[in-house]
Amino acid sequence: MKLYGDSQSGNCYKIQLLLSFLQGGDTDNYNYEWHPVDILAGETQDPGFLRLNPNGKIPLLVLDDGRRLSESNAILNYLAEGSEYLPSDAFERAKVLQWQFFEQYSHEPYIAVARFIAKYLGMPEARKTEFESKQQGGLKALSVMDTHLAKHDYLLGQDFTIADISLYAYTHVADEGGFDLSRFPAVSAWLTRITLREHYLAMP
Amino acid sequence: MKLYGDSQSGNCYKIQLLLSFLQGGDTDNYNYEWHPVDILAGETQDPGFLRLNPNGKIPLLVLDDGRRLSESNAILNYLAEGSEYLPSDAFERAKVLQWQFFEQYSHEPYIAVARFIAKYLGMPEARKTEFESKQQGGLKALSVMDTHLAKHDYLLGQDFTIADISLYAYTHVADEGGFDLSRFPAVSAWLTRITLREHYLAMP
Repeated sequence: MKLYGDSQSGNCYKIQLLLSFLQGGDTDNYNYEWHPVDILAGETQDPGFLRLNPNGKIPLLVLDDGRRLSESNAILNYLAEGSEYLPSDAFERAKVLQWQFFEQYSHEPYIAVARFIAKYLGMPEARKTEFESKQQGGLKALSVMDTHLAKHDYLLGQDFTIADISLYAYTHVADEGGFDLSRFPAVSAWLTRITLREHYLAMP
Repeated sequence: MKLYGDSQSGNCYKIQLLLSFLQGGDTDNYNYEWHPVDILAGETQDPGFLRLNPNGKIPLLVLDDGRRLSESNAILNYLAEGSEYLPSDAFERAKVLQWQFFEQYSHEPYIAVARFIAKYLGMPEARKTEFESKQQGGLKALSVMDTHLAKHDYLLGQDFTIADISLYAYTHVADEGGFDLSRFPAVSAWLTRITLREHYLAMP
């Protein structure tokens, strides 16, 4: 299979992190081809890429038979099927999805976008107001996570799942978006817990 | 089970629409209690409601044993499990999720938010710029859907699934957010196709 992505994107890193856990350090096991796509250079809007994903976003997974799948969290669910990282119980699976939809609606649009403006665009004057408008929503998302993680090792409780992978991706670099993680001790402990897991892969 | 929601919210309507199809017109079959929560009156931020969902959002499903599930698309996946509206094949399930994550990231934040500003807030002067900034993203989402639906009866192809329910909710009222649906003939035909299905339930 082929994975189109940008190594600076947390949404793409989610997939690489899951694959590292799934293949247990055996980099040949999944045997996927990484196809770099440079967001900043506008490559997600190239006609050739838009033919693969008309929504113009990465990551994009292309199976050997040509079938295509986009949206980072949909890809995680597909790749984790049958593994320890995705429960089989219907309610538990829905809880994984609950956290992943929280990530895409209440977390990523604040924390990842603030990080993008600050780190990749270099905080241009024209987007400073937008950057500042992202702080409140980002702090709220971190607060919701902190309250939950104060009582649970992982988002689903005892088990480490793709819900944790989804939220780890941009949370662990939230400081690059101006968020002070020391204010969220349970989130910080959870981040450390994940980095200590066997076959953890740091963001490139 | 109990469903907390606001009948004016498309995210809540998704659940009511699925339940109508699932119960096949038999309103006693699911026997769910509807608990109205008024977003405009600030009831999703009441301390009592925040104890149920710390993220302060509806819809919220509470099972008879007290377990709680939030995020409209997570609830749809849970309730549709084992029915004709959610495929059993892992790739097809992931495609359902792909469209649902597209809905929450690339569609709802433009189309539903524009509708909220125009219809429920009465287009206050202070939010007019935000309303206008939503048009481009909304048109792009409708265009992605139109291109796909020009070749397929439903989002997954031949079968009507919860991916269609997710995207139907705010698309069919997109005109209330200033979007001219006559520019998207395949989307318009798909909307009609859904309203003609047996046990279709109109938005309250």
